[in-house]
Amino acid sequence: MGSDPSCFALGLKAWKIQIDRADKLFGSLSSEEVLREVAPGRNRVLYLWGHLTAVHDAMLPLLGLRERLHPEFDVAFISNPDRSRADMPSHEQVRRAWNLVNTELWKAFETMSWPDWAQRHSAVSEEDFAKDASRNRFAVLLSRTNHLSYHLGQAVLALESARG
Amino acid sequence: MGSDPSCFALGLKAWKIQIDRADKLFGSLSSEEVLREVAPGRNRVLYLWGHLTAVHDAMLPLLGLRERLHPEFDVAFISNPDRSRADMPSHEQVRRAWNLVNTELWKAFETMSWPDWAQRHSAVSEEDFAKDASRNRFAVLLSRTNHLSYHLGQAVLALESARG
Repeated sequence: MGSDPSCFALGLKAWKIQIDRADKLFGSLSSEEVLREVAPGRNRVLYLWGHLTAVHDAMLPLLGLRERLHPEFDVAFISNPDRSRADMPSHEQVRRAWNLVNTELWKAFETMSWPDWAQRHSAVSEEDFAKDASRNRFAVLLSRTNHLSYHLGQAVLALESARG
Repeated sequence: MGSDPSCFALGLKAWKIQIDRADKLFGSLSSEEVLREVAPGRNRVLYLWGHLTAVHDAMLPLLGLRERLHPEFDVAFISNPDRSRADMPSHEQVRRAWNLVNTELWKAFETMSWPDWAQRHSAVSEEDFAKDASRNRFAVLLSRTNHLSYHLGQAVLALESARG
Protein backbone atom coordinates (compact mmCIF):
# COMPACT_ATOMS: atom_id res chain seq x y z
CA MET A 1 0.00 0.00 0.00
CA GLY A 2 1.39 3.39 -1.02
CA SER A 3 1.75 6.48 1.12
CA ASP A 4 -1.74 7.77 0.39
CA PRO A 5 -4.17 4.84 0.38
CA SER A 6 -7.51 5.33 -1.27
CA CYS A 7 -10.62 4.56 0.71
CA PHE A 8 -11.45 1.42 -1.25
CA ALA A 9 -7.90 0.09 -0.80
CA LEU A 10 -8.60 0.04 2.94
CA GLY A 11 -11.69 -2.05 2.28
CA LEU A 12 -9.55 -4.49 0.32
CA LYS A 13 -7.01 -4.58 3.12
CA ALA A 14 -9.76 -5.39 5.65
CA TRP A 15 -10.95 -8.24 3.40
CA LYS A 16 -7.42 -9.60 3.10
CA ILE A 17 -6.89 -9.50 6.87
CA GLN A 18 -9.98 -11.63 7.44
CA ILE A 19 -9.10 -14.04 4.61
CA ASP A 20 -5.63 -14.49 6.11
CA ARG A 21 -7.17 -15.20 9.53
CA ALA A 22 -9.50 -17.75 7.95
CA ASP A 23 -6.63 -19.38 6.03
CA LYS A 24 -4.70 -19.74 9.26
CA LEU A 25 -7.65 -21.04 11.27
CA PHE A 26 -9.08 -23.47 8.71
CA GLY A 27 -5.71 -24.44 7.29
CA SER A 28 -4.49 -25.73 10.65
CA LEU A 29 -7.32 -28.22 11.12
CA SER A 30 -7.04 -31.99 11.09
CA SER A 31 -9.78 -34.05 9.42
CA GLU A 32 -11.06 -34.87 12.88
CA GLU A 33 -11.11 -31.24 13.98
CA VAL A 34 -13.16 -29.99 11.01
CA LEU A 35 -15.97 -32.28 12.13
CA ARG A 36 -16.25 -30.60 15.54
CA GLU A 37 -19.35 -28.56 16.33
CA VAL A 38 -18.84 -24.91 17.28
CA ALA A 39 -21.30 -25.46 20.14
CA PRO A 40 -23.42 -28.50 21.10
CA GLY A 41 -25.90 -29.27 18.33
CA ARG A 42 -24.66 -26.37 16.16
CA ASN A 43 -22.84 -26.28 12.81
CA ARG A 44 -19.63 -28.20 12.35
CA VAL A 45 -16.52 -26.25 11.31
CA LEU A 46 -16.45 -27.97 7.88
CA TYR A 47 -19.99 -26.76 7.23
CA LEU A 48 -19.04 -23.17 8.09
CA TRP A 49 -15.96 -23.41 5.88
CA GLY A 50 -18.00 -24.78 2.97
CA HIS A 51 -20.68 -22.14 3.57
CA LEU A 52 -18.11 -19.35 3.37
CA THR A 53 -16.65 -20.92 0.23
CA ALA A 54 -20.07 -21.03 -1.45
CA VAL A 55 -20.86 -17.42 -0.47
CA HIS A 56 -17.46 -16.21 -1.75
CA ASP A 57 -17.90 -18.22 -4.96
CA ALA A 58 -21.22 -16.45 -5.52
CA MET A 59 -19.35 -13.12 -5.31
CA LEU A 60 -17.72 -13.86 -8.69
CA PRO A 61 -20.92 -13.30 -10.73
CA LEU A 62 -22.32 -10.85 -8.16
CA LEU A 63 -19.35 -8.55 -8.81
CA GLY A 64 -19.53 -9.19 -12.56
CA LEU A 65 -16.19 -11.00 -12.62
CA ARG A 66 -16.97 -14.44 -14.07
CA GLU A 67 -19.28 -17.45 -13.73
CA ARG A 68 -19.12 -19.51 -10.56
CA LEU A 69 -16.42 -22.08 -9.92
CA HIS A 70 -18.36 -24.30 -7.51
CA PRO A 71 -22.11 -23.78 -7.90
CA GLU A 72 -22.62 -27.33 -6.62
CA PHE A 73 -21.59 -26.15 -3.13
CA ASP A 74 -24.92 -24.38 -2.64
CA VAL A 75 -26.93 -27.55 -2.08
CA ALA A 76 -24.61 -28.72 0.68
CA PHE A 77 -23.76 -25.40 2.30
CA ILE A 78 -26.46 -22.79 1.59
CA SER A 79 -29.86 -24.28 0.76
CA ASN A 80 -29.60 -27.03 3.39
CA PRO A 81 -28.50 -27.12 7.03
CA ASP A 82 -25.56 -29.11 8.31
CA ARG A 83 -26.02 -32.91 8.61
CA SER A 84 -28.92 -32.98 6.14
CA ARG A 85 -26.93 -34.29 3.15
CA ALA A 86 -25.00 -37.53 2.86
CA ASP A 87 -23.01 -36.19 -0.10
CA MET A 88 -21.35 -33.17 1.52
CA PRO A 89 -18.02 -32.25 -0.13
CA SER A 90 -15.01 -33.64 1.73
CA HIS A 91 -12.45 -31.76 3.81
CA GLU A 92 -10.03 -31.86 0.89
CA GLN A 93 -12.65 -30.67 -1.62
CA VAL A 94 -13.61 -27.74 0.60
CA ARG A 95 -10.00 -26.78 1.16
CA ARG A 96 -9.26 -26.80 -2.56
CA ALA A 97 -12.42 -24.86 -3.46
CA TRP A 98 -11.80 -22.29 -0.70
CA ASN A 99 -8.29 -21.61 -1.99
CA LEU A 100 -9.34 -21.50 -5.64
CA VAL A 101 -12.29 -19.15 -5.10
CA ASN A 102 -10.41 -16.69 -2.90
CA THR A 103 -7.40 -16.64 -5.22
CA GLU A 104 -9.69 -15.88 -8.15
CA LEU A 105 -11.43 -13.10 -6.23
CA TRP A 106 -8.16 -11.51 -5.13
CA LYS A 107 -6.74 -11.61 -8.67
CA ALA A 108 -9.76 -9.63 -9.86
CA PHE A 109 -9.79 -7.25 -6.86
CA GLU A 110 -6.24 -6.20 -7.61
CA THR A 111 -7.23 -4.90 -11.02
CA MET A 112 -10.32 -2.96 -9.88
CA SER A 113 -10.41 0.82 -9.52
CA TRP A 114 -12.99 2.88 -7.63
CA PRO A 115 -15.27 3.32 -10.69
CA ASP A 116 -15.39 -0.50 -10.89
CA TRP A 117 -16.35 -0.84 -7.21
CA ALA A 118 -18.95 1.92 -7.51
CA GLN A 119 -20.88 0.00 -10.18
CA ARG A 120 -24.08 -1.83 -9.28
CA HIS A 121 -23.77 -5.48 -8.30
CA SER A 122 -25.59 -8.00 -10.44
CA ALA A 123 -28.37 -8.77 -7.93
CA VAL A 124 -29.76 -5.24 -8.14
CA SER A 125 -31.66 -3.99 -11.19
CA GLU A 126 -30.64 -0.85 -13.05
CA GLU A 127 -33.88 0.73 -11.94
CA ASP A 128 -33.32 0.01 -8.24
CA PHE A 129 -29.70 1.08 -8.50
CA ALA A 130 -30.81 4.43 -9.92
CA LYS A 131 -32.83 4.92 -6.72
CA ASP A 132 -30.10 3.71 -4.35
CA ALA A 133 -26.54 3.83 -5.65
CA SER A 134 -25.20 2.46 -2.36
CA ARG A 135 -26.09 -1.03 -3.63
CA ASN A 136 -22.77 -1.29 -5.38
CA ARG A 137 -19.88 -3.74 -5.52
CA PHE A 138 -17.96 -2.11 -2.68
CA ALA A 139 -20.98 -2.59 -0.39
CA VAL A 140 -20.85 -6.30 -1.29
CA LEU A 141 -17.16 -6.44 -0.36
CA LEU A 142 -17.78 -4.85 3.06
CA SER A 143 -20.82 -7.00 3.72
CA ARG A 144 -19.01 -10.24 2.83
CA THR A 145 -16.03 -9.26 4.98
CA ASN A 146 -18.37 -8.89 7.96
CA HIS A 147 -20.06 -12.18 7.08
CA LEU A 148 -16.65 -13.87 7.16
CA SER A 149 -15.81 -12.31 10.56
CA TYR A 150 -19.19 -13.43 11.92
CA HIS A 151 -18.53 -17.09 11.12
CA LEU A 152 -14.85 -16.93 12.13
CA GLY A 153 -16.04 -15.89 15.60
CA GLN A 154 -18.04 -19.11 15.66
CA ALA A 155 -15.43 -21.41 14.11
CA VAL A 156 -12.81 -20.38 16.65
CA LEU A 157 -15.02 -21.69 19.46
CA ALA A 158 -14.61 -25.23 18.19
CA LEU A 159 -10.86 -24.92 18.32
CA GLU A 160 -10.03 -23.05 21.44
CA SER A 161 -12.23 -25.20 23.60
CA ALA A 162 -10.32 -28.25 22.44
CA ARG A 163 -6.84 -26.77 22.43
CA GLY A 164 -6.98 -24.12 25.15
CA MET B 1 -27.60 8.23 1.41
CA GLY B 2 -27.62 10.30 -1.79
CA SER B 3 -27.53 9.05 -5.34
CA ASP B 4 -23.75 8.90 -5.50
CA PRO B 5 -22.43 7.56 -2.20
CA SER B 6 -18.82 8.17 -1.36
CA CYS B 7 -16.68 5.20 -0.47
CA PHE B 8 -16.41 6.10 3.22
CA ALA B 9 -20.20 6.53 3.46
CA LEU B 10 -20.47 2.83 2.59
CA GLY B 11 -18.10 2.05 5.46
CA LEU B 12 -20.36 4.03 7.78
CA LYS B 13 -23.40 2.20 6.45
CA ALA B 14 -21.73 -1.16 7.13
CA TRP B 15 -20.97 -0.03 10.71
CA LYS B 16 -24.59 1.06 11.20
CA ILE B 17 -25.93 -2.26 9.90
CA GLN B 18 -23.89 -4.20 12.46
CA ILE B 19 -24.78 -1.80 15.30
CA ASP B 20 -28.47 -2.21 14.46
CA ARG B 21 -28.08 -6.01 14.49
CA ALA B 22 -26.36 -5.79 17.87
CA ASP B 23 -29.04 -3.47 19.26
CA LYS B 24 -31.70 -5.92 18.19
CA LEU B 25 -29.87 -8.98 19.52
CA PHE B 26 -28.70 -7.57 22.86
CA GLY B 27 -31.78 -5.40 23.36
CA SER B 28 -34.09 -8.40 23.28
CA LEU B 29 -32.38 -10.24 26.14
CA SER B 30 -33.80 -10.90 29.57
CA SER B 31 -31.51 -10.64 32.61
CA GLU B 32 -31.41 -14.40 32.70
CA GLU B 33 -30.50 -14.69 29.01
CA VAL B 34 -27.53 -12.31 29.21
CA LEU B 35 -25.91 -14.70 31.67
CA ARG B 36 -25.95 -17.59 29.19
CA GLU B 37 -22.66 -18.86 27.83
CA VAL B 38 -22.21 -18.84 24.03
CA ALA B 39 -20.82 -22.38 24.33
CA PRO B 40 -20.03 -24.53 27.36
CA GLY B 41 -17.33 -22.91 29.48
CA ARG B 42 -17.06 -19.90 27.11
CA ASN B 43 -17.90 -16.21 27.57
CA ARG B 44 -21.34 -15.18 28.71
CA VAL B 45 -23.34 -12.85 26.46
CA LEU B 46 -23.14 -10.00 29.01
CA TYR B 47 -19.35 -10.25 28.93
CA LEU B 48 -19.30 -10.00 25.12
CA TRP B 49 -21.68 -7.06 25.25
CA GLY B 50 -19.54 -5.28 27.85
CA HIS B 51 -16.40 -6.11 25.87
CA LEU B 52 -17.84 -4.56 22.71
CA THR B 53 -18.93 -1.50 24.74
CA ALA B 54 -15.41 -1.05 26.14
CA VAL B 55 -13.81 -1.43 22.69
CA HIS B 56 -16.23 1.06 21.14
CA ASP B 57 -15.71 3.49 24.03
CA ALA B 58 -11.96 3.34 23.34
CA MET B 59 -12.68 4.40 19.75
CA LEU B 60 -13.62 7.89 21.02
CA PRO B 61 -10.02 8.92 21.85
CA LEU B 62 -8.58 6.60 19.17
CA LEU B 63 -10.45 8.59 16.52
CA GLY B 64 -9.57 11.88 18.22
CA LEU B 65 -13.20 12.62 19.13
CA ARG B 66 -13.20 12.99 22.91
CA GLU B 67 -12.11 11.36 26.18
CA ARG B 68 -13.64 8.02 27.12
CA LEU B 69 -17.08 7.75 28.69
CA HIS B 70 -16.54 4.44 30.50
CA PRO B 71 -12.84 3.75 31.04
CA GLU B 72 -13.78 1.66 34.08
CA PHE B 73 -15.20 -1.02 31.73
CA ASP B 74 -11.69 -2.14 30.75
CA VAL B 75 -10.97 -3.93 34.01
CA ALA B 76 -14.12 -6.02 33.75
CA PHE B 77 -14.26 -6.57 29.99
CA ILE B 78 -10.81 -6.22 28.42
CA SER B 79 -7.94 -6.81 30.85
CA ASN B 80 -9.67 -9.74 32.57
CA PRO B 81 -11.57 -12.78 31.35
CA ASP B 82 -15.21 -13.49 32.14
CA ARG B 83 -16.02 -14.70 35.68
CA SER B 84 -12.79 -13.32 37.15
CA ARG B 85 -14.32 -10.20 38.75
CA ALA B 86 -17.03 -10.00 41.39
CA ASP B 87 -17.74 -6.36 40.50
CA MET B 88 -18.71 -6.72 36.86
CA PRO B 89 -21.09 -3.96 35.67
CA SER B 90 -24.74 -5.03 35.72
CA HIS B 91 -27.01 -5.78 32.77
CA GLU B 92 -28.59 -2.32 33.13
CA GLN B 93 -25.20 -0.57 33.37
CA VAL B 94 -23.92 -2.33 30.23
CA ARG B 95 -27.09 -1.54 28.32
CA ARG B 96 -26.88 2.15 29.24
CA ALA B 97 -23.16 2.41 28.46
CA TRP B 98 -23.60 0.57 25.12
CA ASN B 99 -26.31 3.01 24.02
CA LEU B 100 -24.43 6.08 25.22
CA VAL B 101 -21.12 5.15 23.59
CA ASN B 102 -22.60 4.22 20.22
CA THR B 103 -24.81 7.31 20.14
CA GLU B 104 -21.76 9.47 20.82
CA LEU B 105 -19.76 7.73 18.09
CA TRP B 106 -22.53 8.05 15.54
CA LYS B 107 -23.04 11.74 16.29
CA ALA B 108 -19.36 12.33 15.53
CA PHE B 109 -19.30 10.03 12.46
CA GLU B 110 -22.08 12.04 10.85
CA THR B 111 -19.94 15.17 10.87
CA MET B 112 -16.77 13.55 9.47
CA SER B 113 -15.60 13.98 5.88
CA TRP B 114 -13.04 11.84 4.03
CA PRO B 115 -10.08 14.07 5.06
CA ASP B 116 -11.09 13.42 8.69
CA TRP B 117 -11.20 9.64 8.17
CA ALA B 118 -7.88 9.69 6.32
CA GLN B 119 -6.06 11.16 9.34
CA ARG B 120 -3.90 8.96 11.54
CA HIS B 121 -5.55 7.40 14.57
CA SER B 122 -4.15 8.30 17.97
CA ALA B 123 -2.42 4.94 18.61
CA VAL B 124 -0.01 5.43 15.70
CA SER B 125 2.85 7.94 15.88
CA GLU B 126 3.33 10.64 13.26
CA GLU B 127 6.53 8.92 12.25
CA ASP B 128 4.91 5.52 11.74
CA PHE B 129 1.99 7.11 9.94
CA ALA B 130 4.37 8.76 7.51
CA LYS B 131 5.63 5.27 6.62
CA ASP B 132 2.18 3.67 6.40
CA ALA B 133 -0.75 6.02 5.83
CA SER B 134 -3.18 3.09 5.83
CA ARG B 135 -3.15 3.26 9.64
CA ASN B 136 -5.87 5.87 9.60
CA ARG B 137 -9.25 6.40 11.23
CA PHE B 138 -11.18 4.69 8.45
CA ALA B 139 -9.09 1.54 8.95
CA VAL B 140 -10.16 1.63 12.63
CA LEU B 141 -13.81 1.88 11.59
CA LEU B 142 -13.57 -1.15 9.29
CA SER B 143 -11.60 -3.16 11.82
CA ARG B 144 -14.06 -2.45 14.66
CA THR B 145 -17.01 -3.31 12.40
CA ASN B 146 -15.45 -6.72 11.76
CA HIS B 147 -14.70 -7.12 15.47
CA LEU B 148 -18.38 -6.48 16.20
CA SER B 149 -19.48 -9.05 13.59
CA TYR B 150 -17.05 -11.60 15.03
CA HIS B 151 -18.60 -11.41 18.50
CA LEU B 152 -22.17 -11.17 17.18
CA GLY B 153 -21.59 -14.52 15.50
CA GLN B 154 -20.76 -15.89 18.96
CA ALA B 155 -23.52 -14.10 20.90
CA VAL B 156 -26.20 -15.44 18.59
CA LEU B 157 -25.25 -19.01 19.52
CA ALA B 158 -26.43 -18.43 23.09
CA LEU B 159 -29.82 -17.34 21.85
CA GLU B 160 -30.73 -19.59 19.00
CA SER B 161 -29.87 -22.72 20.91
CA ALA B 162 -32.30 -21.69 23.62
CA ARG B 163 -35.05 -20.30 21.40
CA GLY B 164 -34.73 -22.28 18.21
